[in-house]
This record gives sequence, structure tokens and C-alpha cells, in this order.
Amino acid sequence: VESAQFPDTEFPIQNLPLGVFRRSPEELPSIGAAIGDSILDLSACARGGLFESDCRAAGEACLGQSLDPLMALDVSHWSALRRRVSELLRSDGNDVRRNGGRLRALLVRMDVVEMLVPASIGDYTDFYASVFHATNVGRMMRPDNPLLPNYKYVPIAYHGRASSIVSSGTRIRRPSGQTSGGPAVPPSFGPCRNLDYELEVGFFVGTGNALGAPIPIQAAEDNVFGLCLVNDWSARDIQRWEYQPLGPFLSKSFATTISPWVITLEALEPFRVPAFSRSPGDPSPLPYLSDPANTEHGGIDIDLEVLLCSGSMRERRIAPVTLSRSNLRDMYWTAAQMVSHHSSNGCNLRPGDLLASGTVSGASEDSRGCLLELAWRGEKPVLLPTGEERRFLEDGDEVVMRGRCTRPGFAALGFGQCRGMIDGAAEPR
Amino acid sequence: VESAQFPDTEFPIQNLPLGVFRRSPEELPSIGAAIGDSILDLSACARGGLFESDCRAAGEACLGQSLDPLMALDVSHWSALRRRVSELLRSDGNDVRRNGGRLRALLVRMDVVEMLVPASIGDYTDFYASVFHATNVGRMMRPDNPLLPNYKYVPIAYHGRASSIVSSGTRIRRPSGQTSGGPAVPPSFGPCRNLDYELEVGFFVGTGNALGAPIPIQAAEDNVFGLCLVNDWSARDIQRWEYQPLGPFLSKSFATTISPWVITLEALEPFRVPAFSRSPGDPSPLPYLSDPANTEHGGIDIDLEVLLCSGSMRERRIAPVTLSRSNLRDMYWTAAQMVSHHSSNGCNLRPGDLLASGTVSGASEDSRGCLLELAWRGEKPVLLPTGEERRFLEDGDEVVMRGRCTRPGFAALGFGQCRGMIDGAAEPR
Repeated sequence: VESAQFPDTEFPIQNLPLGVFRRSPEELPSIGAAIGDSILDLSACARGGLFESDCRAAGEACLGQSLDPLMALDVSHWSALRRRVSELLRSDGNDVRRNGGRLRALLVRMDVVEMLVPASIGDYTDFYASVFHATNVGRMMRPDNPLLPNYKYVPIAYHGRASSIVSSGTRIRRPSGQTSGGPAVPPSFGPCRNLDYELEVGFFVGTGNALGAPIPIQAAEDNVFGLCLVNDWSARDIQRWEYQPLGPFLSKSFATTISPWVITLEALEPFRVPAFSRSPGDPSPLPYLSDPANTEHGGIDIDLEVLLCSGSMRERRIAPVTLSRSNLRDMYWTAAQMVSHHSSNGCNLRPGDLLASGTVSGASEDSRGCLLELAWRGEKPVLLPTGEERRFLEDGDEVVMRGRCTRPGFAALGFGQCRGMIDGAAEPR
Repeated sequence: VESAQFPDTEFPIQNLPLGVFRRSPEELPSIGAAIGDSILDLSACARGGLFESDCRAAGEACLGQSLDPLMALDVSHWSALRRRVSELLRSDGNDVRRNGGRLRALLVRMDVVEMLVPASIGDYTDFYASVFHATNVGRMMRPDNPLLPNYKYVPIAYHGRASSIVSSGTRIRRPSGQTSGGPAVPPSFGPCRNLDYELEVGFFVGTGNALGAPIPIQAAEDNVFGLCLVNDWSARDIQRWEYQPLGPFLSKSFATTISPWVITLEALEPFRVPAFSRSPGDPSPLPYLSDPANTEHGGIDIDLEVLLCSGSMRERRIAPVTLSRSNLRDMYWTAAQMVSHHSSNGCNLRPGDLLASGTVSGASEDSRGCLLELAWRGEKPVLLPTGEERRFLEDGDEVVMRGRCTRPGFAALGFGQCRGMIDGAAEPR
């Protein structure tokens, strides 16, 4: 595929992320691997007998309409499939020489298909792994004591809503809900006025564990199939009123957008970096969250970017503007620590479960991963090129998230896009 | 079925709860209706052509191995199935006269089968709907100001973990986790020392709504398929340390036990009562949670009971002792209000989703639905007949929950049992 060799492609042959697509709403979904501007239809490859010997089981798992059967296998099968897909696509490979025409027929152009949520997500868990985000949010509420005493010991998380996870591009209806008018007046019900995005990275569980059998940290990464981008849309005014004492609920459950391509952990191997460097005064992780290999390369170097395009920017054909840039390597907890903590009480993780990192914010002001932080509760509105100001999201705003891995001497990998546009609230009944 | 006419049966012909069972681990699960000490195999009835005309769609939905296809239909289908099953089982009915022998072959004894979780639970939501429970728990933490200001406006809830929901009888392994040793010492990881149960009632969603389309309170009960008992096992020491600021997570996700029989809302019709009477100073529910029909009969009169049997009671053949009795009608929020609130932000509820009520505690001390309240944080230990004391659960303890509806002139209905025994913690690795 020629486009896979363009220097600015997100999907060179070193990436090969997996996803689920369909050519039309009438057609059954297929599993595919992204390559340049195209998708190799892995379901068709499997039916055509192209996945044999060590990738036969993985090939059979590609016959369904969701990635979970493949996620239910293990690293050795994921690896075998990746090798085989790479071999099929190599322009100098035997397969292309022998079956070039046949392979071309199994490629479909990315811009003519619809991408779907890639797995049946049984449970969705949202972490809170950026100490910068937690500190910023804490500072707004408790200026003298921003970070709670558990933060540097416990990878804080809450259960999210699986049913409302949607694929990139799905329009997001502004939620309604209860908000407080202050201590002296009763709350009221109406459209959210403090609508926000949260830039996160998602981890899809592969393999998983039985109930009652925790995953030790040394084995944790074997239970991560791959990564995607996550926009954990948040209604801040609803959240403020509802969240005590059991945590966020309706302020989050109206929608969560994910990018459609799952970048495998194997593809990310060249971009592994040490875990976040704790400050001298920080405690060591407890033994069940400690592992020298994790300390050494538990981090992943992914540049993340949030862009915004307002309705009037779109009308005036002004390109989306960058709101923030941050990097997953700045998270206080690694993916392995999150998996290990999550299962440490015996909770079973199932293939297809989604764990999200929490808002990825860095140390600098321009690396804050949500509007609440960027515009500091509305006190420092963000200025758009049209002269508009943003404290929170307005109807017609489109939020686009991107992720990219680069390293000298290695092909750059992209995550594709995680995008969503805000529609006005539903009419009251 | 003769046993269905015994005065103490939980499953007279007026009940006909639905569940999923299998005769052996090798056999595929079937859908059944409980009747006396037996189960009518509805999957076999459907295959045998016993569900025709207005219950044909419901019959086809009984061909699977889970109740969700049936839950995905609507009240009219659920009703048609109930009428037909009742007709098949009536001892004076035409079916029994014509096909008595054939029907007997479709009955299986309840005590020889294994009951399974009845639906594929996509999302599990746990409410906090008892004002008595919320006040008691709040009083332990904030004696002067026990109830948070949002409580009487917002049906508080959090997302629970779906993967670790297990059927009655499954052994519960004591979870391990992080607990705090106090402000001056670092936390440690080890077996939970404050293990608790929570008596709750679960509501299975039927029909459901599309994303972005809230369910108005007037239609809310049409989206409730039926009820079961729920034990929301809780690790209080883990909860105390982890729950700020995002709510309970690992303190709940290690296991949730549900009773296997789903009592339909139609069967509960004779036991409907007015919604909980608010105190004179309490605010009215906001309009989206208000409905005269809900005020008039949104409550359900279900007597609930928690029993405990310790290991040494079992050894000495001492019968389980009652710890508390309470009633679902004492909940501050009704099922309709919970459904309506849950979807008010556009969140989609799917057939098979489980909504739990939160701990069902009443006004009196002997109606407190968890040990945390009953033994008041360990300050007033519960005395067992063996002389043992219980502040929290010990290994070998078995907790049994029961539910029963009675009303003069009507057959009493039972919920069956929701039971679970505590196993010791896993060996540390």
C-alpha cells in the first residue's frame, strides 16, 4: 500500500492497529487492520484461508464482528497475527508477488467505511492517574491541601458506564441534569452549562483473570491488548452537585467517545520509557504495585493533542485550534499498575473491558487535558481565533483528540482521531 | 404441581418468577419458571410449540440461555407469556387435562439443578435509596450533619462492577486491598478486616431506551422487567481509604451476589403501596421525578430478612439467626424514580442491566441492612447464639437474604434465597 509509506501517515506497516468496520449499515461488520489510507479486511483474509498454522486461532477469532474473541486469546496469538498481517502487506514479500491482485481485493479505502466500537465492552473503568490533573482539580476545591492523602498510594478509579461508549464521530447531545443554585436555593433540572471533555488513553483488556485470582504486576501487561484514545465527556455542574458521597454518575454516563483503532502493545514497544519519576518525597509504591521491569519501561511515550473547532470557526473555514498537548508518560501510574491494582481484590477483568487512564495533564499550563483545568473553572477563558471565548463547551463545538508516537530511527505511529461534536440539549418533555 | 399449593411455598402459581438453570455443567442452560418445588422448562415448552399466537415472540426469546432477549421485548409480551405459563400449570386447565403427561416431562425438580445469573448484565448500577441507611452511615462520619444536602433531591448512585456478579451460593473469597493505618503511618496491603454484606433489592431493566432519549417517569416502570435480591458485599476498611474523591471501587467490585429468580413486576402488582411518605420539611421531588401515579403506588411492600450462620453454628447444627428485618417500601426513592433519574441525562439503559436499591434499612435499630450499621462501626457487636460476637464478617460465615410479599386475601410470594459463604483470603504471592 503506497500511502503507508508516506512520511506523514499514521498507519505505516509498523503500526497495524485493529478495528471493526462496515461498508454500509446493511452489511455485517468486519475486523480490519489499518494500513496507510486503507484497511486490510482480516475477516475476509481468514475466510480466504490466509491465516494458517500459528495464526490459525487468531484468524478464526477474526471471523466475528468484534475484537473480543481475539482479545480473549493471548500475546502469542496476537503476535502471530501481527507477523502474518505484516508479511501479507510487505511490498517485497512472497504473498504480494504471488497474490497481489487477490490481496488488493481484500483492501478497502478507509474513507468509505464506518468505524464501530471495536469490542463488546463488558465493564469500563476510569482511572485518575495524572497527579497534575488531580492536583489541579484538588487545588480548585482545597487550595491548601490539593492532593488527598491516598493519591500517591492508590491508583484511584471508579466504574464508568459501558452502554454509552460510542465511536469517534458520533454526535454528543448536551445532557440535562440537576445542578445546585447555591446553599440557599433548591437545585434545578436543565441542560448542562459546564460541559467539558477529558483527554484520556484507553487500555483494552486481553486474556483477563478468573474471579478471585489477582493478576500480579509482573503479568499485568500480558493482559493489555492495546490502546485507544478516550474522550470522557463530563458535565461539571452536574458532577459538582451529585458526586458526594459515591462519586461521579450522571455527569459522566451520558457519553464516552473512543477512537476506533486499537494500537497493540507490541506496536508500541519502541516507545516504551521508564515509569513516571516520582519526586524525592513521594512514597514507593506498595509491593503489589512494584516491579523493576515496570519502573524501567512501564511508561509509554505518546504525544497527545486536543483540538477544538467551534461552529463559527467551521463556518469561516478556520482550522481547528490546538488547546493542549500532553504525554501519557507523565502519568503517575502505569498501565501495569492499573491492571494489577484493579484485580488485586480478586475482581475479574474480561477480554474487551476498557480501562481509561484519567485526564492526561502534564506539569505545564498548556498541557492540561480538560477545559475545567485549562480555563481554570472559567476564570481564565480560552480565546479562539474568531475572538470567541470558551469557559466550557458550546453547542456546535467539535473536540478532536490525536495521539502520536515518534522516536528517531523509528517509523512514527498515529492513533487516528477521537472526535465528537456537541448537539443542543433534548427538548424538555 | 402439588407443592405450589402448600401454604408455605415461595412459588405459588401467582408468582411464576423466571430464571436460568442447567441440569449439569455439561448441559446448555435453559430458561425456567419456578412453581412450587419445581421448574417448568420454558425453553423446552417453546421448542415443543406450546407458546403460540400472542406469546410466540416471548416463546422464541426463551430459546436462548439468558433472559435478556425476553427482557428486550415489552410488557405486553411479558404479560402474554405469564398468562400462558399460568394456563399451562393450572390443575383445572385444558392443557393439564389434555397433556398432563407431556407437561410433567417439562418439569424439573428445583433441588437437582444449578441456578445461574439470569441475564447478561451489561451495566450494574447501585443506588443509595434508603434515607435511614444514608443517615446512619453519615452520622458515623459527620454526627452533626449526617445527611448531605443533595440527598433529598438526587437519587444518589454509582456505577458498579458487572463482571463479578455471581449467583446465590457462590463462595465469596475475602478480598485483599489497601487500608490505612492512620495519618502517621503508610497504608498496607492485606486481607480485608471489615468485611460486610449489604441487603439490597435489584431491578432488571426490560425494553430500555436509546442513547440521548430519557425515559419519562410516567413510562419508567414499563422498563422494569422484574426484581431479585442483591448482596452488595463491601470491604469497609478498603472503602474508607480508597473512596475519596471518586467513590467506592475495589471495596465493592470483588463480588456481588444475586438471587436467581426474577419476580416480575406484574406478579408484584397486589403488593404495590404508596411511595415513601416524606417528612413535612422534606422537599418535593423535582418535576422530572414527580408523578401522581408514582406517589400513589410507586412503592413495593417486600419484607426482607438477613440471616447469618457462622462456621461454629453450622458445626453445632444451630439454625441461622436473623440479623435484621426491613421492607423495600421504606426506601426514599421508588424504582420509577431511579429509572427516570438514571436516564435523565440521556444515558441508555439496556435490557438485562441491573439497578440495585442500595442497602435497605428502616427506621428501627433491628431493621439496619448491613453490619456496619447494625454493629455501629464495631462499637455494638452483634451476639450470636454460640456466644460469638460479630463486628464484621468472619471466614466461614454464611449470609442468607430472603424476601417475602404478603397481603390478606392474596397468595404470599417469596424471592427464594440470596446466599454466600466467606472463604479465607487468597495466599499472598
